[in-house]
Amino acid sequence: MRMYDLIDKKKNGGALSAEEIRFMVQGFTCGNIPDYQMSAMLMAICFSGMDETETLELTLAMKDSGDTLDLSGIKGVKVDKHSTGGVGDKTSLVLTPMVAALGVPVAKMSGRGLGHTGGTIDKLECFPGFCTALPEEKFMENVNRIGIAIAGQTANLAPADKKLYALRDVTATVAQRSLIASSIMSKKLASGSDAIVLDVKTGNGAFMKQEADAAALAETMVKIGNMAGKKTAAIITDMEQPLGNAVGNSLEVIEALQALRGEGPDDLMEVTYALGAQMLLFAGVTEDRAHAVKLLKQTITSGSALHKFAEFVKAQGGDPEDVMIPGRLPVASEKIEAKAAADGFVTDILAEQIGVACMTLGGGRETKESAIDLSVGICLKKKIGAPVSRGDVIAEIYANDKTRGADAKKLVEDAYRYGEIAPEKRQMIRKIITE
Amino acid sequence: MRMYDLIDKKKNGGALSAEEIRFMVQGFTCGNIPDYQMSAMLMAICFSGMDETETLELTLAMKDSGDTLDLSGIKGVKVDKHSTGGVGDKTSLVLTPMVAALGVPVAKMSGRGLGHTGGTIDKLECFPGFCTALPEEKFMENVNRIGIAIAGQTANLAPADKKLYALRDVTATVAQRSLIASSIMSKKLASGSDAIVLDVKTGNGAFMKQEADAAALAETMVKIGNMAGKKTAAIITDMEQPLGNAVGNSLEVIEALQALRGEGPDDLMEVTYALGAQMLLFAGVTEDRAHAVKLLKQTITSGSALHKFAEFVKAQGGDPEDVMIPGRLPVASEKIEAKAAADGFVTDILAEQIGVACMTLGGGRETKESAIDLSVGICLKKKIGAPVSRGDVIAEIYANDKTRGADAKKLVEDAYRYGEIAPEKRQMIRKIITE
Repeated sequence: MRMYDLIDKKKNGGALSAEEIRFMVQGFTCGNIPDYQMSAMLMAICFSGMDETETLELTLAMKDSGDTLDLSGIKGVKVDKHSTGGVGDKTSLVLTPMVAALGVPVAKMSGRGLGHTGGTIDKLECFPGFCTALPEEKFMENVNRIGIAIAGQTANLAPADKKLYALRDVTATVAQRSLIASSIMSKKLASGSDAIVLDVKTGNGAFMKQEADAAALAETMVKIGNMAGKKTAAIITDMEQPLGNAVGNSLEVIEALQALRGEGPDDLMEVTYALGAQMLLFAGVTEDRAHAVKLLKQTITSGSALHKFAEFVKAQGGDPEDVMIPGRLPVASEKIEAKAAADGFVTDILAEQIGVACMTLGGGRETKESAIDLSVGICLKKKIGAPVSRGDVIAEIYANDKTRGADAKKLVEDAYRYGEIAPEKRQMIRKIITE
Repeated sequence: MRMYDLIDKKKNGGALSAEEIRFMVQGFTCGNIPDYQMSAMLMAICFSGMDETETLELTLAMKDSGDTLDLSGIKGVKVDKHSTGGVGDKTSLVLTPMVAALGVPVAKMSGRGLGHTGGTIDKLECFPGFCTALPEEKFMENVNRIGIAIAGQTANLAPADKKLYALRDVTATVAQRSLIASSIMSKKLASGSDAIVLDVKTGNGAFMKQEADAAALAETMVKIGNMAGKKTAAIITDMEQPLGNAVGNSLEVIEALQALRGEGPDDLMEVTYALGAQMLLFAGVTEDRAHAVKLLKQTITSGSALHKFAEFVKAQGGDPEDVMIPGRLPVASEKIEAKAAADGFVTDILAEQIGVACMTLGGGRETKESAIDLSVGICLKKKIGAPVSRGDVIAEIYANDKTRGADAKKLVEDAYRYGEIAPEKRQMIRKIITE
């Protein structure tokens, strides 16, 4: 078998066999197939596409390129949750202690932020002493003992995906549905859970700007998951503006803690309940979606979710008081106010630009190697639909550097759009896809 | 400017500007742009195409990537000739002494054979002592003194094309019209002639199997040449079977010498006259195509072309007696007869397979580094349209190794197709394109 022939086949619109896909993924991962052949193949895939079977086989080959986690030592139905990434998305921080408080084991591998979107691992590191590099044994023990553990992805989880993604990132071949779906699902399948709930974001702050593209990606991923024998669902959620009010690591953790105290913003809670309900359904806690939401809400009112979070932080080396006592997490020293440029209603907030403003402050990564400042960020005071008068404070910028703060302020102010008529209320949950 | 953005632009169907194309070609040639980005770009070009302006700019950028020959020291209109490559194509050997004998200066850079097609430089090296690596000064002096010099391409002629071609060759991105056209034309433009005559082959032994593809390529190349300020014409010629009877370096030289003695096969002569007439028109020797053919024929009957060839061989270090005395060039020792498998008429000869048979004998290159045996080859005794009886000799195989000879015999016999009805006579000259 020659890579040349596979490129030629795909270029001519042919479908690659399972054997051909394994040859390609294995050869590329071990270095036998050079980058320049793989990038030609990736571009051919961007044009010719991959059918369902090819996409599944690509996912499985990438999953099998490295270690796979065996979670069979953990009792109960393990349900994983993944977000395609957005601005201000702290859902995992709110959601995981809620479902763990209801007895659903959370054994989660998470990523770091890249570009204008954040990552759960960075956020958890806002707790002084918190360890995200848990050894596998400790990880399993924690889940069995307290019902929750979240760790960074091990280096050898789907190495084919890491290498492929790095190549796609520099060859303009990221935006292809089968490639995106297989990248996400290979890691999810390697992570060993029994079921997978996907939060597929759509809107100007998401990777998929159009809802139809998000739905198509969601359908592809759900099909892959189900074909691979894992119950999989996807929920399409709105990312036309940042989720919640806080953008930036510490600020988002603070907002998540507020949410666990019952003071979370509506949009964040709506997404959290929708994803959580699906997790409870898959875990067999209840068969009724409305009842699932009720159970989730009870974990807030009873305080059980907040306590679970404190227990979790403690188990991974942090101080549970940082969870229980508000105001302990540090935020950047400079607070700059961004002001409304017009009278009327907020009609749009360019979420990606808010994410870029946070990067400008030092709170996001330009490359995987960048160091980030966890304490900076933006707190939105007005969201879409809010009535404003010119000069009203629309957001607070938390900066550790005045110049960067001023730059971020300008970006935030430019990210707001105003109109004379109140826009329609945004529908947060667009679609639930289970097959 | 970032290569990433150029790839993305081309992927989305955009047209690259002259500045962008120069940035890309220069960056790739000097190694600043890595292979993996260029191969993604090449594949995007295969799908999105390039318009006329882009193709011209790519050609010019590749031409300017290395040395360009200055032929202004040579008196007269310099007309170059190029073939897109076929099996048994010894046209240049016959044509160049004919036009040189008519006073048209021939200052030609030629290539070596690769794959199933041969190259003029290899063929000339059949003459013991013949030197194809002429220093520029000697090259110019020879053209001015005797009217003809043929040398191998210097290493630094269009180095961007060399590097690009090597990458296309391993990434299944060879077969794209703009890439083929710019590859050929960048070298032709760098070679410094005043006018260019292209022999674009079509048929099963050619790169362009379909005549429409060949015509489209020809039109693109003619447009590039004319836009670059060189009078350019393309003649679409038949390559549905090998040209002439001989395939293999020595055998082809012997056939070319026979042709110069007036004993050339009709199809070879027809193509030679068509190309030669166009060269004479461009050189201003005559304004009438029929008259041009008449002049060419006179160089055969008068013996002036054969004498010019002898003079040329002598000027580049060979022995003119090898030209003037038939039977001096060595051919392989084993002669094996290939036989007809059926009664009837020859309806098809798979030219590419005849070329492969010649490679099997050791007469062609698998890679650029392969050494070749100049003395082996195949002499076709029956061509398309010939009546045959089962067992008739259809071809003679000249081998230096019995096993290889037997393999080649099988390939040659399998390359013939027979039918009960005589096929229509093939039209050698399909189209002349001058704009």
